[in-house]
Amino acid sequence: MTDTSLDEVDRAILRALQEDARHHTNAEISERVDVSATTVGKRIAALEEQGVIQGYRTEIDYEVAGYPLLVLFICTAPIADRERLLRETFDFDGVVNVRELMTGVNNVHILVAGTATDEITRIAHQIDELGFNVNDEILLRNEYNEPSAHFEPGVADE
Amino acid sequence: MTDTSLDEVDRAILRALQEDARHHTNAEISERVDVSATTVGKRIAALEEQGVIQGYRTEIDYEVAGYPLLVLFICTAPIADRERLLRETFDFDGVVNVRELMTGVNNVHILVAGTATDEITRIAHQIDELGFNVNDEILLRNEYNEPSAHFEPGVADE
Amino acid sequence: MTDTSLDEVDRAILRALQEDARHHTNAEISERVDVSATTVGKRIAALEEQGVIQGYRTEIDYEVAGYPLLVLFICTAPIADRERLLRETFDFDGVVNVRELMTGVNNVHILVAGTATDEITRIAHQIDELGFNVNDEILLRNEYNEPSAHFEPGVADE
Amino acid sequence: MTDTSLDEVDRAILRALQEDARHHTNAEISERVDVSATTVGKRIAALEEQGVIQGYRTEIDYEVAGYPLLVLFICTAPIADRERLLRETFDFDGVVNVRELMTGVNNVHILVAGTATDEITRIAHQIDELGFNVNDEILLRNEYNEPSAHFEPGVADE
Amino acid sequence: MTDTSLDEVDRAILRALQEDARHHTNAEISERVDVSATTVGKRIAALEEQGVIQGYRTEIDYEVAGYPLLVLFICTAPIADRERLLRETFDFDGVVNVRELMTGVNNVHILVAGTATDEITRIAHQIDELGFNVNDEILLRNEYNEPSAHFEPGVADE
Amino acid sequence: MTDTSLDEVDRAILRALQEDARHHTNAEISERVDVSATTVGKRIAALEEQGVIQGYRTEIDYEVAGYPLLVLFICTAPIADRERLLRETFDFDGVVNVRELMTGVNNVHILVAGTATDEITRIAHQIDELGFNVNDEILLRNEYNEPSAHFEPGVADE
Amino acid sequence: MTDTSLDEVDRAILRALQEDARHHTNAEISERVDVSATTVGKRIAALEEQGVIQGYRTEIDYEVAGYPLLVLFICTAPIADRERLLRETFDFDGVVNVRELMTGVNNVHILVAGTATDEITRIAHQIDELGFNVNDEILLRNEYNEPSAHFEPGVADE
Amino acid sequence: MTDTSLDEVDRAILRALQEDARHHTNAEISERVDVSATTVGKRIAALEEQGVIQGYRTEIDYEVAGYPLLVLFICTAPIADRERLLRETFDFDGVVNVRELMTGVNNVHILVAGTATDEITRIAHQIDELGFNVNDEILLRNEYNEPSAHFEPGVADE
Repeated sequence: MTDTSLDEVDRAILRALQEDARHHTNAEISERVDVSATTVGKRIAALEEQGVIQGYRTEIDYEVAGYPLLVLFICTAPIADRERLLRETFDFDGVVNVRELMTGVNNVHILVAGTATDEITRIAHQIDELGFNVNDEILLRNEYNEPSAHFEPGVADE
Repeated sequence: MTDTSLDEVDRAILRALQEDARHHTNAEISERVDVSATTVGKRIAALEEQGVIQGYRTEIDYEVAGYPLLVLFICTAPIADRERLLRETFDFDGVVNVRELMTGVNNVHILVAGTATDEITRIAHQIDELGFNVNDEILLRNEYNEPSAHFEPGVADE
Repeated sequence: MTDTSLDEVDRAILRALQEDARHHTNAEISERVDVSATTVGKRIAALEEQGVIQGYRTEIDYEVAGYPLLVLFICTAPIADRERLLRETFDFDGVVNVRELMTGVNNVHILVAGTATDEITRIAHQIDELGFNVNDEILLRNEYNEPSAHFEPGVADE
Repeated sequence: MTDTSLDEVDRAILRALQEDARHHTNAEISERVDVSATTVGKRIAALEEQGVIQGYRTEIDYEVAGYPLLVLFICTAPIADRERLLRETFDFDGVVNVRELMTGVNNVHILVAGTATDEITRIAHQIDELGFNVNDEILLRNEYNEPSAHFEPGVADE
Repeated sequence: MTDTSLDEVDRAILRALQEDARHHTNAEISERVDVSATTVGKRIAALEEQGVIQGYRTEIDYEVAGYPLLVLFICTAPIADRERLLRETFDFDGVVNVRELMTGVNNVHILVAGTATDEITRIAHQIDELGFNVNDEILLRNEYNEPSAHFEPGVADE
Repeated sequence: MTDTSLDEVDRAILRALQEDARHHTNAEISERVDVSATTVGKRIAALEEQGVIQGYRTEIDYEVAGYPLLVLFICTAPIADRERLLRETFDFDGVVNVRELMTGVNNVHILVAGTATDEITRIAHQIDELGFNVNDEILLRNEYNEPSAHFEPGVADE
Repeated sequence: MTDTSLDEVDRAILRALQEDARHHTNAEISERVDVSATTVGKRIAALEEQGVIQGYRTEIDYEVAGYPLLVLFICTAPIADRERLLRETFDFDGVVNVRELMTGVNNVHILVAGTATDEITRIAHQIDELGFNVNDEILLRNEYNEPSAHFEPGVADE
Repeated sequence: MTDTSLDEVDRAILRALQEDARHHTNAEISERVDVSATTVGKRIAALEEQGVIQGYRTEIDYEVAGYPLLVLFICTAPIADRERLLRETFDFDGVVNVRELMTGVNNVHILVAGTATDEITRIAHQIDELGFNVNDEILLRNEYNEPSAHFEPGVADE
């Protein structure tokens, strides 16, 4: 892992992109950060290439979109099969997000959006057949993704 | 909650935005979905207004960005104080994502990115002082956010 | 508790009532059990008076009736307050069934039917404020209430 | 699932049937709800056909009826076999009620009434041999089934 | 199981025997209970034959006797094998008492007295090889067996 | 604690007393062990004085005696209050045996015999009010107290 | 935290000191590592100053030394008080090692060596009174501290 | 196990060696304990031979040494394979300390030091493949090894 040194400009750009990755154009970010739009574009390209930026994601309110049931499956993947299992989870309809945790039990969190309990049960079958142990299924009430404080002005100086 | 009926055009647009919310411009989506760029713009505005689209988020690889420790705090918020506590968690440096679950115990998952164990410990203190019970702290190895199958062509017809 | 000796006629009547408490009239049961309808009526009255029969309940499919979320709250009531708490749970909108278990933890199961997660959350608040500890909230997929084997012909002879 | 819109008359009828499914005749409900007995009969038939009403059940006090031990078996059914297992549980003498929960562990609650601990042990053997994991066996102290608030006058207007 | 009706004389005899099964001779009990020693003998014989009295046990302080480690093994016996396993546990050196509980997990408590941790480990191996799952091993600090209140004068009248 | 060295005669006497503390008189043990009855008496007195023998207990089959419900309460006593709490548990009607375990949670096992669930519930109230946390209440199916192998011939030589 | 770059000489010295901190004199290490004894001394002084070396500890077999009971207390320290509590644990007789873990529950492991169960119970009281929650007390069978592979020749080159 | 009687001189020597096994030479200990350096040497040799002293270990601050992740693996070793598994754990790079506990579950604690989460994951794979069940992986914040009170002056007299 080559460490990436982010300067104040990088951080301000990341901050702007965290707030709104679509409507904050290079031109708008340029004004805010006080460098040229070309520099903003180059910096963003560099951050993408270094892997600091992994992608730009649209946050969906699945309930409003017609998928009122958001269920978090707390699963255990056998350590030896974990990587193979994780690659295949996105093949299932309904899977929205997957987290892999460094522990032996309850080490995979799979978030699923569906229309009704029958659909959730069908996905539970798929997850089970793939090789996970499903230990808990919990309704998600809300998820919050506000911009974090990491790239706020001043924080870099600490 | 007014139910939102998404047609095939809406779904195709959502799909394109899930894949890349920044580089997929209205013009590019227009070609892909085969409606005019103006229509794409109007539809996106409508989806934003209805609340189907909650925002556009930049995914950061915190490890590459210099925050190698990603820790998931599994907390219990007393039901009566849960909403107040949740509003305040984003005031802490390092909090990246918060999930609120419909259960009495382990009902809040707080994801934190930090540089070293001392920093994680300091955030644990803040979370504890705010009123959460911290039941577990688990290292996150990976998080996956690929576009879900919900808006794939054909899925709407089921 | 005065023990109640049920004879074969009592058991056959109970069996018929378990199968259908409304459409199995005294006349119909009379044919099936081979005693007069008057006797059926007298026996039922006696069974009600002795407390063997506690009531006649209509089973609702809450999902079809417009309450798609059936949630089982697994709660702990402090032993000293348990009886008072139990009396008050039916004051909450949405409570369908309550079970009191002989153990110190997870000793009350409250079944709730609601229209959406917001409503379930509101009931969770009420249950919490009343004094229960809510330890788990689990979606109910199905409940089965077929006539049990206790009053089948022949079982009484064992 | 076709959604069923219940009007005030339907709700009042359901309320009456929840209170007493046997002694509340169509005629009595007619007076209470202020529509003709024929209408009550038609409405009930429609509610039965739509599946809102699943049946009419007689509540037995098993302790008074000579079965003093009411035990709740908390079981785990392997997800893949759950449906087959559930169909067969009512073949066992003593099973009174079965609940299927949407979670991977402790996902089936089986309520059993018996005369003595030997009988409960015999049923535990049957449940175990069928393929369930029995994780807990808890004495039930009481079960409450009062009419819920769902169909109370005024609640429908909310 | 034929129910046994114990009268006041039986209860007083049981009380005396609970206090001291060896030094309370029939003659001494006779004085205390105010019936003849012959009657005491006949009553005791009857209580033994009915199975109310299972035996007369000497309580050993194993720590004083040279076995300072008293360890309670909390085990799970598979339901299907439980009876066979229980019969064989007393073949192991060191087993002092076994309790069989009506639950699926942690359903057998085995109390073992030994001289040193190596000996306890050897017995753990034997218990494991026999087919139990050993879930916990806890040091016993004290066990109390005072005469219970069941046969105290006056209690029978309740 | 003064260590007690038991010789072969002591062990053989203990073995005989473990088998039957009442019917194995000094004379009978004398024949078996091949020392005089006077010696047996002296040895037993010494073992009592040293505290190796704590008492002679009559084992009751509470189910046959009219107390069909044997319930093991798994409790937590706060460490600071444990000794006081333990002294008072035998004041409750129904308590048969108490075990104190060296752990912070589930550190007291209280065995209770009762006639019906109401009585068990009443005792649960008393245990709770005294200051214990009752974590589980489990039905006891059987308890086995055969003579242990500690004092079998040959074992002492190991 | 200033990062410390260890070269091959440092690593070989650490390896030698891990194997035997007392009998491996500077002279002996000098031969093994092929630098002068003076250099060995200077390097060790530097490693001590940088904090790489925290101290030189004598491993005691407490069982042989007359303390046969080694008990691991699994405790929860309230996050807010953790640091104060940890400072005070070494004031208790018998504490041998303390580990502080980054989690909310079971976050302090205290290892205690004692002569008998009474002594362990006394220490449990002290730990409890100080403010820890003692959740488990487990007998330690063995602890292994062989030199780790970190400073083996060749490992540094990876 | 032959019991070892430690006198005041032995205890004082052990105390000095616990404080600093390297810099406290025989000569320095001789002054402190007030016996000749030759006697100190002889006593230490005897304590080593008896097994009271198991070795002299250098305490490394792995974080300073370039291994910032210290993770405690809480594992279950099947009782039958435990000894074989334990022998092999030190073959893995990164293992620093292993504890074997007398319980059936979570009976082995393996402490690992590594540079990054990928390395910790690789070691988790090795531990899993060897045959352990990894139940938890917890970050270690600190470990404390101050000299214990066992050999303090005066303590031996108790």
